[in-house]
Amino acid sequence: MFNLGNFLQLSTFGESHGKAIGGIINNFPAGIVIDLEKIQQQLDRRRPGQSAIVTQRKEGDKIEFLSGISNGISTGMPISFIINNENSKSKDYNHLKDSFRPSHADFTYQEKFGIRDYNGGGRASARETANWVSAGALAKQILPKEIEITAFVSSVGEIFCVKPYQDLDFSNIDSNEVRCPDWETAEKMISKIKEIKKEGNTIGGTITCVIRNLPIGIGEPVFGKLQAELAKAMLSINACKGFEYGSGFCGAKMTGKDHNDLFNPDFTTKTNLSGGIQGGISNGMDVYFRVAFKPVATLLQPQESYDRQGNPILLEGKGRHDPCVVPRAVPIVESLAAFVLADLYLINKTRNLNK
Amino acid sequence: MFNLGNFLQLSTFGESHGKAIGGIINNFPAGIVIDLEKIQQQLDRRRPGQSAIVTQRKEGDKIEFLSGISNGISTGMPISFIINNENSKSKDYNHLKDSFRPSHADFTYQEKFGIRDYNGGGRASARETANWVSAGALAKQILPKEIEITAFVSSVGEIFCVKPYQDLDFSNIDSNEVRCPDWETAEKMISKIKEIKKEGNTIGGTITCVIRNLPIGIGEPVFGKLQAELAKAMLSINACKGFEYGSGFCGAKMTGKDHNDLFNPDFTTKTNLSGGIQGGISNGMDVYFRVAFKPVATLLQPQESYDRQGNPILLEGKGRHDPCVVPRAVPIVESLAAFVLADLYLINKTRNLNK
Amino acid sequence: MFNLGNFLQLSTFGESHGKAIGGIINNFPAGIVIDLEKIQQQLDRRRPGQSAIVTQRKEGDKIEFLSGISNGISTGMPISFIINNENSKSKDYNHLKDSFRPSHADFTYQEKFGIRDYNGGGRASARETANWVSAGALAKQILPKEIEITAFVSSVGEIFCVKPYQDLDFSNIDSNEVRCPDWETAEKMISKIKEIKKEGNTIGGTITCVIRNLPIGIGEPVFGKLQAELAKAMLSINACKGFEYGSGFCGAKMTGKDHNDLFNPDFTTKTNLSGGIQGGISNGMDVYFRVAFKPVATLLQPQESYDRQGNPILLEGKGRHDPCVVPRAVPIVESLAAFVLADLYLINKTRNLNK
Amino acid sequence: MFNLGNFLQLSTFGESHGKAIGGIINNFPAGIVIDLEKIQQQLDRRRPGQSAIVTQRKEGDKIEFLSGISNGISTGMPISFIINNENSKSKDYNHLKDSFRPSHADFTYQEKFGIRDYNGGGRASARETANWVSAGALAKQILPKEIEITAFVSSVGEIFCVKPYQDLDFSNIDSNEVRCPDWETAEKMISKIKEIKKEGNTIGGTITCVIRNLPIGIGEPVFGKLQAELAKAMLSINACKGFEYGSGFCGAKMTGKDHNDLFNPDFTTKTNLSGGIQGGISNGMDVYFRVAFKPVATLLQPQESYDRQGNPILLEGKGRHDPCVVPRAVPIVESLAAFVLADLYLINKTRNLNK
Repeated sequence: MFNLGNFLQLSTFGESHGKAIGGIINNFPAGIVIDLEKIQQQLDRRRPGQSAIVTQRKEGDKIEFLSGISNGISTGMPISFIINNENSKSKDYNHLKDSFRPSHADFTYQEKFGIRDYNGGGRASARETANWVSAGALAKQILPKEIEITAFVSSVGEIFCVKPYQDLDFSNIDSNEVRCPDWETAEKMISKIKEIKKEGNTIGGTITCVIRNLPIGIGEPVFGKLQAELAKAMLSINACKGFEYGSGFCGAKMTGKDHNDLFNPDFTTKTNLSGGIQGGISNGMDVYFRVAFKPVATLLQPQESYDRQGNPILLEGKGRHDPCVVPRAVPIVESLAAFVLADLYLINKTRNLNK
Repeated sequence: MFNLGNFLQLSTFGESHGKAIGGIINNFPAGIVIDLEKIQQQLDRRRPGQSAIVTQRKEGDKIEFLSGISNGISTGMPISFIINNENSKSKDYNHLKDSFRPSHADFTYQEKFGIRDYNGGGRASARETANWVSAGALAKQILPKEIEITAFVSSVGEIFCVKPYQDLDFSNIDSNEVRCPDWETAEKMISKIKEIKKEGNTIGGTITCVIRNLPIGIGEPVFGKLQAELAKAMLSINACKGFEYGSGFCGAKMTGKDHNDLFNPDFTTKTNLSGGIQGGISNGMDVYFRVAFKPVATLLQPQESYDRQGNPILLEGKGRHDPCVVPRAVPIVESLAAFVLADLYLINKTRNLNK
Repeated sequence: MFNLGNFLQLSTFGESHGKAIGGIINNFPAGIVIDLEKIQQQLDRRRPGQSAIVTQRKEGDKIEFLSGISNGISTGMPISFIINNENSKSKDYNHLKDSFRPSHADFTYQEKFGIRDYNGGGRASARETANWVSAGALAKQILPKEIEITAFVSSVGEIFCVKPYQDLDFSNIDSNEVRCPDWETAEKMISKIKEIKKEGNTIGGTITCVIRNLPIGIGEPVFGKLQAELAKAMLSINACKGFEYGSGFCGAKMTGKDHNDLFNPDFTTKTNLSGGIQGGISNGMDVYFRVAFKPVATLLQPQESYDRQGNPILLEGKGRHDPCVVPRAVPIVESLAAFVLADLYLINKTRNLNK
Repeated sequence: MFNLGNFLQLSTFGESHGKAIGGIINNFPAGIVIDLEKIQQQLDRRRPGQSAIVTQRKEGDKIEFLSGISNGISTGMPISFIINNENSKSKDYNHLKDSFRPSHADFTYQEKFGIRDYNGGGRASARETANWVSAGALAKQILPKEIEITAFVSSVGEIFCVKPYQDLDFSNIDSNEVRCPDWETAEKMISKIKEIKKEGNTIGGTITCVIRNLPIGIGEPVFGKLQAELAKAMLSINACKGFEYGSGFCGAKMTGKDHNDLFNPDFTTKTNLSGGIQGGISNGMDVYFRVAFKPVATLLQPQESYDRQGNPILLEGKGRHDPCVVPRAVPIVESLAAFVLADLYLINKTRNLNK
């Protein structure tokens, strides 16, 4: 209970400033040739310190596999990995032992468990997402190679990438710091983030993710719908505030006549407001969804708060923090999507044994 | 696998036009006095045929409990229930045997399973939600009585209820057909739906749900976050296209300085853009979220489609269908939220045994 | 949680004297042609009132399927079934409201849950096993047809069927009331049970189960071993006190030299003390195991006990009860074994996608 | 899926000759003071090289905790641990790359997964049990301190400890190499094992486990029975061939009159053939069970076998192996029992919220 995935299962552990973080993946099939480079690449895309607009914290984030892979091939046994924590300046957090940061999980963890690890946010830290990226990049390798999962930054604050995703060149995504494939928009986003950073403030944004070449039939009726599994995974990301797929919240303003996706004779559809899913099951069209992220709660400017005794205090972020979370969240979104798909892909192997 | 809930678990069964639908709830605690009236009330709020703006299908929707309740008290044994299907006009669906309705699950079910029950949508029908309402209304009774879960229609098409929920009188929700507590807005919504219905068209909308008096500590770190569990449940509803909580997609446009919820000395917060959740765990403030619903796909006007052989056909909804799903979805949203909360509430009993 | 099976999952409900018992099977594959006759046959083998040596209670035990099967073919949707309770003489149990029968679950249910349904043992009644037989007989139909699962009575009290199972003609099993394929032994067993019954006493026994033609590869390493799954299922049967497979408890007396199963060149083994399983995984040889059942606790003679207030009382079974449980437990053992195998068989489809 | 435990969950990883083994425990409650010494003590009791009658392999088996414990107190977060592999002589196993050892899992792993780690048995090695001992010794600390879980060797080959467990002094268990509390029997067992070892042979045995002071109410009806959970855990141990509790297989020879446990006025029972469990739920009496272990399959004498091509070969154990597994299995049995109990103990906290 409280793992990621239904059949393909990820258990994770680790606190931000503990010795290591890591995880175990159960029910990974045997015989998959594992490309370790690709896993490290996704981890590097998530890593702090990549560019001027993300946190300057340096984390090596070198993943080490301890089991389940033999000579580069999965053996069907649990795959475990650890990522050592390094460069963790616990003294940055001593002032938080007895105080609760606004819009952080300090207060709720303390109240729920009666104890909390306050260093770097402990278990509530987004450092955990390095585990997800590792597991997702692995799970991606279970899927048929033609399936493409691509996420990009579609807004920062009020700056939106207004072009439909079909008009974007995804090969541009990593060519700029903010990971928006539209250069003009990307520049505006980067300026905005730099401006916000200078103020010691932070800003929110959204990420759009597109899944291409997904076979028909992925996702389960009723309690395992593809969109529900994706929503759950995305809402698990630390700053995530919302999820929509296909027409999303805009679809709620439309009429059925405009919204219905009429079939072509080959059962592709003329439009794709459905977002590639009908009845929880992929229909062969692109699956696409959008994820909202709130601004990072840690500000490099003073904020009023209270200590555990209720005395007023002033808090100011002293660590190294992101002014905007979305550029680094791009590989997180992709990896969680990959894990969800791989889980449902394996399950689908049992649905009709005659196929 | 593929039940609702982690610990408190609902398994359901049933096709729209089969003999019955129903479910089994596992791990329901013993000693709960069950108010069967309240369950039937929620079912009646979901039922077709309530008013002029919903489907005129007549379904009795009488729930029968078969186990787990003795003299009105839960025994700790699995609670099972069935709701017989009546008045199901299967012949309404004969024309669908070999054709796929646009934006329905006909095509994906057929492709995934190689077989499908085409009567009334079979398992993909929203009739399943009667099971969820039953189970959720039961699960609600596990929770402390002071917890209030209230959903209402916050938009129909382009018509929005713009007042903040704090300014609405929730006792008005059921006083009008559309279940919007703001009378003026409600009237506009009702007119719009009648107009759309006359055209044989349908329209989307949103529902807002507010949870009051939830104790601190409900929800689990990392893979059992309250918002993730709610999102998954809501995205399981048939027409749902999106979920946001607290500041939601608007939060993605904001800066941290504006978004952070500063504490009061008693650890309530001055604002509540967080939506009552920090780190996946309730913080004692109101939890609120919004759910987007697409327009119903079945239109009472002809639509072009193709039969299984790829020949062009004209489809026209012949059954009795809703022009707008949101009024009847209100109890569904409430019930799923109740089930999610009851599940996490029970789990929380094991988190610190010293408490 | 607390279902039967890991992936193929059975949830059940029902008390002995409630309206009905039944269950839901999740993740049953689509496209399986279902032979309903075979399910009813196994239920009839379990049913009370079949012969002079089992309880004379009459239960129709007619199973009704409510979902998941369309025109005799599984649709991939949850399969649900109910078996109505009839002929339940609740007044037989009124004397038990405030008293606890020796070696029954009355006391533990009352203490654990603070409430219990005392009619006919409520949820603790072996009536539940009718659900298992139904589900197991269904699950059997997922498996390749050549797999044979055969159980028989191998001892009653001190009377043992001493021949190795290879020397028995399994077609004789149902030719006598006690379901022992060795006629001579069967006659002794029947006499013994009749004698015991006359005394108002009961007697224990064992069942041996043999699984033939099981493919290599069924069962999972470490926490899903075939023998562990079988053991768990068997120990769930109401009167079961023990499980052994292959050499079992006798194997604990042996040396490695005598116990090891040497290979033939085709990787069958010369002996089969392993019981067809190595490392939790079937090796292609016969899987066989033995299950011990205690004597039925309800005696048709007076026993001393105490009521809830601790006052001494005399209890005497007034209902219709079995003098020996093993003849009717034969289809239960077979059905549970079938369910376990079908669960692991489906899971195995995901282990190596290249196969 | 395929973890140990229903709610308290252990995921493990690791191959015998990989870098490390380890695990993650989910849903461990917060606020438990952890005695790390006790965990290491149990690990030391399991460790090879303790005495003349067990394998002379030297493994440090030092456990390292990576998360979930802060200043010696559990935080409610996943507890992870690793045990590094050292002194693993992989070259001892090179001859096994293309051959299958009799009564080992080499053949079934190869066939099922199409790939296997042949060094030291890989994942199928009993080295995995070090993970279980770690997790079980931790889980033990969740339970009320008065609960005692004590296992001991009750037979080696044909040598049985015939005294009832009530007449044994459990403080003697660790005073001899074989872990049988009856000195006279212990001496015979030790001689027997030494004799068998000299021959390069191995021998089986049984372990009895007694759980004292278990509160009433542990265990769940139907699919979570205490005996079924214990059986599943025990049958997961590598060499285990059988499980019985209470009267066990002897109970199958008895009559109900002799077998029933009559109550005392305080609802303890006069006898305890039930083994402390009624209806799957503990009744406050001692829970006791017995586990059968086959002789170790690796012999230090030549055995005939075949390589993957079907050519005859002679195999002879070259590593360091146990002549008898039961002395070292004592802490394994205790630890698995502790884990099962802790899992069911936590679940029981949710059964009646009024208590």
